[in-house]
Amino acid sequence: MLVVPLIERKREGGKLTAEEWAELIGEYATGRVPDYQMAALLMAAFLNGLERDELVALTDAMLNSGARLSFEGLGRPVADKHSTGGVGDKVSLVLAPLVAACGVAVPMMSGRGLGHTGGTLDKLEAIPGFRTDISLDDVREQIERIGCAMFGQTGEIAPADRKLYALRDVTATVESIPLIAASIMSKKLAEGLNGLVLDVKRGSGAFLADLDDSLLLAQTMIELGEEHGCHTVALLTAMDRPLGDACGNALETAEAIGCLRGEGPDDLWQVTLAQGVEMLRVTGVTDDTMVARQMLEEVRTSGRAAEKFRQVIAAQRGDPRVLDDPHLLPAARLTQEYAAKRAGTVSRIEPRAIGRAIVAMGGGRQRMEDPIDPTVGFVLRAKPGDRVAAGQSLAAIHARDETGLEVARAALDSAITIAGRAKPPLPLISHRVTLKDVEVLE
Amino acid sequence: MLVVPLIERKREGGKLTAEEWAELIGEYATGRVPDYQMAALLMAAFLNGLERDELVALTDAMLNSGARLSFEGLGRPVADKHSTGGVGDKVSLVLAPLVAACGVAVPMMSGRGLGHTGGTLDKLEAIPGFRTDISLDDVREQIERIGCAMFGQTGEIAPADRKLYALRDVTATVESIPLIAASIMSKKLAEGLNGLVLDVKRGSGAFLADLDDSLLLAQTMIELGEEHGCHTVALLTAMDRPLGDACGNALETAEAIGCLRGEGPDDLWQVTLAQGVEMLRVTGVTDDTMVARQMLEEVRTSGRAAEKFRQVIAAQRGDPRVLDDPHLLPAARLTQEYAAKRAGTVSRIEPRAIGRAIVAMGGGRQRMEDPIDPTVGFVLRAKPGDRVAAGQSLAAIHARDETGLEVARAALDSAITIAGRAKPPLPLISHRVTLKDVEVLE
Repeated sequence: MLVVPLIERKREGGKLTAEEWAELIGEYATGRVPDYQMAALLMAAFLNGLERDELVALTDAMLNSGARLSFEGLGRPVADKHSTGGVGDKVSLVLAPLVAACGVAVPMMSGRGLGHTGGTLDKLEAIPGFRTDISLDDVREQIERIGCAMFGQTGEIAPADRKLYALRDVTATVESIPLIAASIMSKKLAEGLNGLVLDVKRGSGAFLADLDDSLLLAQTMIELGEEHGCHTVALLTAMDRPLGDACGNALETAEAIGCLRGEGPDDLWQVTLAQGVEMLRVTGVTDDTMVARQMLEEVRTSGRAAEKFRQVIAAQRGDPRVLDDPHLLPAARLTQEYAAKRAGTVSRIEPRAIGRAIVAMGGGRQRMEDPIDPTVGFVLRAKPGDRVAAGQSLAAIHARDETGLEVARAALDSAITIAGRAKPPLPLISHRVTLKDVEVLE
Repeated sequence: MLVVPLIERKREGGKLTAEEWAELIGEYATGRVPDYQMAALLMAAFLNGLERDELVALTDAMLNSGARLSFEGLGRPVADKHSTGGVGDKVSLVLAPLVAACGVAVPMMSGRGLGHTGGTLDKLEAIPGFRTDISLDDVREQIERIGCAMFGQTGEIAPADRKLYALRDVTATVESIPLIAASIMSKKLAEGLNGLVLDVKRGSGAFLADLDDSLLLAQTMIELGEEHGCHTVALLTAMDRPLGDACGNALETAEAIGCLRGEGPDDLWQVTLAQGVEMLRVTGVTDDTMVARQMLEEVRTSGRAAEKFRQVIAAQRGDPRVLDDPHLLPAARLTQEYAAKRAGTVSRIEPRAIGRAIVAMGGGRQRMEDPIDPTVGFVLRAKPGDRVAAGQSLAAIHARDETGLEVARAALDSAITIAGRAKPPLPLISHRVTLKDVEVLE
């Protein structure tokens, strides 16, 4: 195919037809269109945007480049959630078994941490033996048997998106709302979902810091979902501070297990609950928010949610005893408390500095192929708005060596601000976005 | 070097420093920056532009990627000209020996035809034996000895530009005024010139059809030249019709030889003369236009210009007898007159259709590696504005086979319009542009 005229048209602000997108993406996936032509086209699309029908066509082209799950005849609605990523965000580990325990099938496809943000797969793999690289056949079988599977994007799902994402990463074409939306939705729509809940993070630790951008991304993904018959709703949640107390893979997994067992922390549970409510609503399990909350609280209190997670861990070759004994999770060699240098109010806990410190301590990756140490990280002991005394511990540092402790202390020095008075943090859950409406919640 | 932050900055409308451009282009030339990153950066630069100091830095980086000629101590001023390309433009073949005969050293580095436009190297190579692939050492020696050399861009000159141009060609990033200006000037400035005359074509057959774009390109190149101590001036000339009568390599070479000997055609001679005047002025040979014209006319009338061309041909292993006997140039197997289908005024001779027909007849190339047949082409027998009778010949077609004749007739059918009345063509030489001034000439 002749690619130069297509690049030219996009460069001049024109649009490509659905057939052109389909052919272009197909030829790119199979290596017949070279990276340099796709890079020029992506930059033109980044700067000139994509029209709505181009976005649908691009998403379809990536979706159709790989396999798709289908759960027809399952007898249960199927839903998933997607988070745009943050620091301390272990919601998926709590949410998937919780909602599955309410009778919704949850084939939860997740990613790995990259840059300052964590990834669900890395947290799950902190559980001894847990395998996330299961085949789509295994996913299907596991969904039929226990209603929940937690796995990584396989080579079978949207391979064109995988190749395109790797190219965007090295050509400064990542932060484009239509390109992000098409990338996320091409993968999610391959899961054969009836409903999808999006957690779009806001604030300094989020991928998109700007509220308008967050809303636009949410709306763009919702349109793509609804266009493909998948009911989609988004919640905008705060990422101007870490979510929950634990930051770091094994520490977060332990916190998620505690939360499933009713231990909190409260902000983690509130975000999980809100997303659980939406998953029950988009799948039509119930239309009543209060009923949905009660269902979710009941499966937590009764232990059925924890039992569902136990089934998932066992099915995916992990050690299910971690649910009763979190000490079976790997632990850091060194721990140290980090004390407040002065009295005052915690005005700020900058999530990026925390996330970057975890990477520097060995617990995250700069490149996809980097190995990680699941044990390192932080357990925060204060939240923005808390009054603290000088010398009071603000966080426990978990590190593998002295260098790690040093990196961690320096990161906390810059991440945590104690001031006379604090600006109020962002509302935890600020907006609910549907195809028709943007509802301001707090 | 980290390229992604540079792409990002250009994408956001920021600028790269001179050091960054130098390193980037250096690393690209040696293959350490991949094509896909450069393609993304080029598209960002295409859409967001380059600031003036970036343009200088990019030009310098490409200039410094290769060898540079130096004619210090030559005792004569050194000048060249560059044309943005057109159909029937054989000015260089007349101009170089003409100006050299007036005492200016002319190291004329030219290109090959591509797309609908012709190239000086192809025209020169129609002369039996003529070699354009001479080394820079040979150029230097020939300039010292006879004051004129006509050669192609060697791998020694601006190799980064060569690689970048090939990438722009396949990524739809060619038609950018700063990128064009940097590409042209990085090569011209490597010639060690005191003066440069630019022939920027206007009209439907030109690379840039729009007057404002042509002026902007001229001004951009002039600034780059003057910034590097090379006096630069531009003339805007008409390319809404072919220049001269002959179109096609050997036919144009024959016409150029005729023009050197005083035979015309008049439009070719006027454009050559105007550019020759500018070459004598930018090199300080004379400041007086009338004196310059007389000098140029004198070397033509006296035969000294033709004699200079004879020396160049002999030095570059061509057969100098073509100067006396143009029949030594290769000739097409078939010729056919093309007759006017009706009486009226020739209102239009579309140069692109003519240029494209020459390619289709085998006389041009779509890709740099294509071989060409120098014999094919057209000799036009009418100009826009001429009144013609039905059946009167409008052109002679020179083709190698029946298919070529057919292609040529179809091209002339579409290229030549005969109407009741004609819109006036563009002025032959419309603007003179210097660093300080745009002078409207007609």
